[in-house]
Amino acid sequence: MSGGRLPVEPADLRVFFEPRNVAVVGASANPTKWGYYIFHNAAAGGFTGRLFPVNRSGGTLFGHPVLRTVEDLPQGEVDLAVVVVPPDQVPGCVEGLAGRGVRAVYVVTGGYSETGAAGAARERELAALATRHGLLLAGPNGQGLLSNPVGLSPQMAFARPPRGGLSMITQSGNIGATLMHYAHVGGVGFCRLISVGNSAMLGIEEFLAFLAEDEGTTAVALYVEGVRDGRRFADALRAAALRKPVVLLKGGRTPGGAAAALSHTGALAGNADLFGRLVEQLGAVVVPSLDRLFDVAAAFASTTPVAGPRVGVVTVGGGWGVVAADAIQEEGLELPDLPPPVVRELDAVLPDRWSRRNPVDLAGDIGPGTMHRCVQAVVECGAYDAVIHLGGGLVGFAGGLMRESPLYPDQGLDLVVEEAARRDQRLGEALARLAGRPSCPLLFASDAAASPGAAQNPGLAALRARGAP
Amino acid sequence: MSGGRLPVEPADLRVFFEPRNVAVVGASANPTKWGYYIFHNAAAGGFTGRLFPVNRSGGTLFGHPVLRTVEDLPQGEVDLAVVVVPPDQVPGCVEGLAGRGVRAVYVVTGGYSETGAAGAARERELAALATRHGLLLAGPNGQGLLSNPVGLSPQMAFARPPRGGLSMITQSGNIGATLMHYAHVGGVGFCRLISVGNSAMLGIEEFLAFLAEDEGTTAVALYVEGVRDGRRFADALRAAALRKPVVLLKGGRTPGGAAAALSHTGALAGNADLFGRLVEQLGAVVVPSLDRLFDVAAAFASTTPVAGPRVGVVTVGGGWGVVAADAIQEEGLELPDLPPPVVRELDAVLPDRWSRRNPVDLAGDIGPGTMHRCVQAVVECGAYDAVIHLGGGLVGFAGGLMRESPLYPDQGLDLVVEEAARRDQRLGEALARLAGRPSCPLLFASDAAASPGAAQNPGLAALRARGAP
Repeated sequence: MSGGRLPVEPADLRVFFEPRNVAVVGASANPTKWGYYIFHNAAAGGFTGRLFPVNRSGGTLFGHPVLRTVEDLPQGEVDLAVVVVPPDQVPGCVEGLAGRGVRAVYVVTGGYSETGAAGAARERELAALATRHGLLLAGPNGQGLLSNPVGLSPQMAFARPPRGGLSMITQSGNIGATLMHYAHVGGVGFCRLISVGNSAMLGIEEFLAFLAEDEGTTAVALYVEGVRDGRRFADALRAAALRKPVVLLKGGRTPGGAAAALSHTGALAGNADLFGRLVEQLGAVVVPSLDRLFDVAAAFASTTPVAGPRVGVVTVGGGWGVVAADAIQEEGLELPDLPPPVVRELDAVLPDRWSRRNPVDLAGDIGPGTMHRCVQAVVECGAYDAVIHLGGGLVGFAGGLMRESPLYPDQGLDLVVEEAARRDQRLGEALARLAGRPSCPLLFASDAAASPGAAQNPGLAALRARGAP
Repeated sequence: MSGGRLPVEPADLRVFFEPRNVAVVGASANPTKWGYYIFHNAAAGGFTGRLFPVNRSGGTLFGHPVLRTVEDLPQGEVDLAVVVVPPDQVPGCVEGLAGRGVRAVYVVTGGYSETGAAGAARERELAALATRHGLLLAGPNGQGLLSNPVGLSPQMAFARPPRGGLSMITQSGNIGATLMHYAHVGGVGFCRLISVGNSAMLGIEEFLAFLAEDEGTTAVALYVEGVRDGRRFADALRAAALRKPVVLLKGGRTPGGAAAALSHTGALAGNADLFGRLVEQLGAVVVPSLDRLFDVAAAFASTTPVAGPRVGVVTVGGGWGVVAADAIQEEGLELPDLPPPVVRELDAVLPDRWSRRNPVDLAGDIGPGTMHRCVQAVVECGAYDAVIHLGGGLVGFAGGLMRESPLYPDQGLDLVVEEAARRDQRLGEALARLAGRPSCPLLFASDAAASPGAAQNPGLAALRARGAP
C-alpha cells in the first residue's frame, strides 16, 4: 500500500517492456504452479532476448537450461526479472537479483497488503529493499506483463492478441486477462499490458506516464479499483490524456464492489460519481462495463480522433442499422441525412429497394465492387465526421461456417468457400485503404469480427465500432 | 403491412417448425443467390423429413434431385414451403403450392411494404391470396426460420447454435442471425427462431402464442421494430410472459433508429419510453442492447426463475468479483455477506488469503475439488437466491490456448492439456449437477465461454450470467 519511491522518469520504465534478457525466478516444471504457465507464456511469445528460468530443481524447461539460483545469472546481462517464489523467499531473491545487475523486478507473488496489516508491513519492507538496491519494482500480487513489440509475455494469462496499438494498465490481473482474451478473439492489436498488483513502488501513475510517451501505444485502457494519492493520479491522468486517448473502468463503484476491491488489492475505493466526473474533467473517457472498456479503447486505438458528431452508417442488414442508429443517437451523436448527390450516386449502383437514407441499408446486396463504391461515396461526401460500416466480412464469415458444414468439401462447397474468401479479402483491403484516411475515420462492426475465424478476415477484424453491436 | 387474417390457433403454427417434408422453391446452384445458401443450410442441418429443392434448372443440389416446378411436388406430402423466387413469380408459386396440399408458406422474397405503397399493395394481395387458399403465410421479406429439435434451418444465416431452450422472434433477419451467432460461439442452446419479416399474415403475436405453448422453448427473445396493433400485441405479450420469460429489445427508440426501421421493415416505431414501460407492465424484460438481449435471454433459457434479490458470487479472480459486485448492486440486487458457518467451512479448505466475504474470491486457487466444495457451500447455505460463478472452465480454456502454443506438442504440453481437460470436465459435471437444483439457480460467466473452444467445455459454456462479464 505504500513504500519508498525512487525519482522515476517515464523512460526508465522501458526496461520492463524492452529488456535485453529476462529471468523468471520460480519458473517451474510442475503444471499446477503459476511458475509453469508464466515461463511457458514467456517462452512461447517469440522474445528475441534470452530467457533464464531459475529454480533450485535445475534441469531444462521448454528447452531452456534452468539455473539453480539467481547467483548463476550472467552478471550485468539481465535487465528484468519476474519473480514467482513463495513470499518468504522474495527478499533474498531481490537482493540476489540486484547483485547480478538486474535493473527491474516484477513480483507476481501475493500475500502482501491485500491480506491485512502484516502483509502491508512486508510490502513496505519489500519496496524499501528495492529502493535501497536501486531496483525498479512492479507488483507484488500482479499477474505479469505483456510487451507485444518484442514478443515478451511473462504472465499467467494465455490469450495472445496480435500486435497493435492498445495498451492497458490494470489493478486486476484477471480483468487484464479478459481484455487480452477479447482482443485475441476479436483480432484487436495489443501493444503493452501491465498488471500493477499492489503497486508497492510503481503503480498506475508511473506506467501512465510511460505509455503516454510510448510510440507504439495509440490508446490506453485503464482498470482502477482505488487510488492512493488523488493528486498524483489526477496529474498523471491529465498529462496522459493530453497525449492520447485514455479509457477508464472503475471497479468498486458500489458498496459491494468497493468491499470486494478492498480484499482484492487492498485498494480503497472512493465516491464513484465524484471520481467519474473528476476523471472526465481530466480528459479521460469513463465506461460502465468491461465490454465497453474493450470496445471504446479498441476503437480509439485503431482510428484517428473524430472531429465532430456527424455519423454515417452503411449496413448490409437493416436491423443492424436500426440498432446502430439508436445507439448513436442515445450517445448524443447525430445521423445527418445523405446529401442528394450521394443518393443519386448510390441509386445508380444499388437495387431499387435500398434505404435512400442514413443508415444506408444495402438490403443484403453484397455484390463485389458495390459495397466499396457505396462506402467510398459516404466517406468522401463531406457530410460525416465518421462512418460506421456494419456487417463487413460476412461473405468470408459465411464461407468459414460453410467449411464446418457436413456437406463440405463435397458438392463444390470448397470452391464456393475459396471464392468467398477471395472476395472478402479484396473488399477488406479496399475498405482498409479507405479507413486509413484521417479526414473521416471509418469504423467497422460485424459478427464476423467476433467469430473464431476473425483473424483470417483481412482488414476488417482489427477495428470495432464504438457503441455499435 | 396488413392483409387478411385466418383464425389461427397456436398449435396450427407447429407446421412451420415440425413439418413432415419441406420444399425450397428457388433453391439455386448459383452461390451468389440466397436460394443457394438457404437450401444449403436446410440440407446441412440433419432434418429427418425429405427436402425438395425446386428450380426450373433441374439437376441436383447437395445430393437432392431438383424439381422443375412446384407441380412436381408429391401431392399432400409437403407441409411447408420456403419461397425465394423473384416477386413477380411469388403469386403463381403460392397457388401451385396450395394445389399440392402444402399447408404453410414462408416467403423470403423482398420488395413488398418495405419499399413503399406499390409494394404494400402487392403484400396485401399476397396475404389475400394465401387466405383464399387456406395457407398459413409467414414473411415476406424475412430471412428464414430455425427449428433445432428437428434439425431444420432453411434460412440465410449460417450460424448453427446447439440445441437448447432459447427461442427467438425477430423483425430483423440479421439481428436474428447475430443472436444465433452469439449462441453458436458461446455454446448457448437454441430451440426455434422465426424471422417474421413484414408479417403480411402471421407476425410476432401469432408466433408468441405458439412459443408460449411450445414445450421445447424455455425463454423467448424478441426483437421488435414496430407494432401494428398495440392491443393485439399487448394481449399476446401478456399471455406469453405469464407462461415463460420474454426478453425484448426495441429497435427504433430514437428518431434515427425509427426512420431506419421504416425503410427496413416498413414498421412504424412509436414512443419508445412509453412502449418500454408498457412492455415491462405486461411482464416482459426490456433490454437496451443486442448483447444484453442475448445474455439475459440465454440466462433465462437455461435456469429456473430466481426467487429473490440475494446474489452470492464465487470467483476465481478478484477483479471479476469487483466488476460483478458493481453490476449486481447497480441492477438493484443485493450482495448479503457470507454466513459465519460458511466462512468457517471455507477457511478449512482455502488458503489464508481468500476474501472471507461475498464475492468469495478464491484468489486464484482452482485446485481440484476445492472449487466445487466452495460453490456447493455457498449454494446450499440458504443465504442466497442465486449464485454466480465467475471464471469457470479456465483450466481447460488455458489448455485450449496452450494447444495453439508454438511449443505444443513438444515439451509434454500435450499431457498438461489433456490433464487440464479432464480436470475441467470433472469440475464442469459437478457444477452442472449443482446448477440443476431449482432452489438456488447457479449462473456462470467466464472468458472460457466466449472462446472458440467453448463447445468443448462441458457443463460451463451453456450458461451465461446476467449483468456479469
